Amino acid sequence: VTTADQEPRRRTATRDKLVAAAASLIPEVGWGGVSARKVAERAGVNLGVVHYHVESMAELRRLAAVRSVRAFFEGPVRLALDAPDPRSGVATLFASLSAGDPRDPQLLLLYESLVAASRDDELRAEIAASLAELRDSLREWLRARGVEHPEAAAVTITAAIDGYLLQRALDPTLAAGPVVEGLTAVLTPPRRRR
Amino acid sequence: VTTADQEPRRRTATRDKLVAAAASLIPEVGWGGVSARKVAERAGVNLGVVHYHVESMAELRRLAAVRSVRAFFEGPVRLALDAPDPRSGVATLFASLSAGDPRDPQLLLLYESLVAASRDDELRAEIAASLAELRDSLREWLRARGVEHPEAAAVTITAAIDGYLLQRALDPTLAAGPVVEGLTAVLTPPRRRR
Repeated sequence: VTTADQEPRRRTATRDKLVAAAASLIPEVGWGGVSARKVAERAGVNLGVVHYHVESMAELRRLAAVRSVRAFFEGPVRLALDAPDPRSGVATLFASLSAGDPRDPQLLLLYESLVAASRDDELRAEIAASLAELRDSLREWLRARGVEHPEAAAVTITAAIDGYLLQRALDPTLAAGPVVEGLTAVLTPPRRRR
Repeated sequence: VTTADQEPRRRTATRDKLVAAAASLIPEVGWGGVSARKVAERAGVNLGVVHYHVESMAELRRLAAVRSVRAFFEGPVRLALDAPDPRSGVATLFASLSAGDPRDPQLLLLYESLVAASRDDELRAEIAASLAELRDSLREWLRARGVEHPEAAAVTITAAIDGYLLQRALDPTLAAGPVVEGLTAVLTPPRRRR
């Protein structure tokens, strides 16, 4: 195998290419359908390159899933955290999410991963960790902006994001407006509690 | 095939048994793994009975998915709608959901269906319809109880339900408390809007 001589940077690049190939294949052929042969074909490398760079297909699929989940949320979340205040942040976040394809292959990959995670504790823990990271960065951002119950708001917003995306995958006409309106109330709790 | 002589009620009972068998098989063997042979085995009938009662495996899986999604939410939603007021309704709903197994096979079936729905428009429309029904009954209940923005509240609550279940499937320790706290704010919007 000639790749044994590659310098580390190039080895990482090859590995990234294989992970990207697996990520694009999962929504197309299903979690279990991603074989070393298909990954090699998609990445345009020899089968030997896959075997050299990848410990197991389970590991490659895990990496593909975790990176995709992260990549999917990264853009919209960054836009939201750049907003001047929590309300416009949430509005921006949902505007960005609802501008995407309701049946985005990365979302499909997320649902494939949920099923696979039920039989793979490592995968489950890794996706859970990246969702927890999203929740934590949102919470700290809300706290810094004086939202009264930042933990409750962050958990409710991330749950609403995932649920909105799930329902929109089923019903592409589902508008974000009512969710944004509802979450605005979460950010501005009643002055006097009963 | 002897079943041709069955009276309608018995035919429906057999069909229900096959749908239940398919519903229990999907989380175990995966959406595509549910064959007529496995359904016959699980239901304790001959293969001919499956072929007689079921037009196609796609149709059987569809029925299994839609009935399971409905059955999963039916109990918790009924409990919520029996609550004296919206706040305790939402608290009851999440208490009921978080008392269940985080990796309930019916939830797994829902995620399998999401993936399958991306390739099956009829399935997609049917699951979307049952989620819309849930949203609508919640909205009318909230409206009847004087919640100010019942549509926004119902959409936000159902999105939060789905997202909470999704995240809890990944992280079984995820508590419902913060979501309930957040949604309480949705039910009692600030008196003075800025």
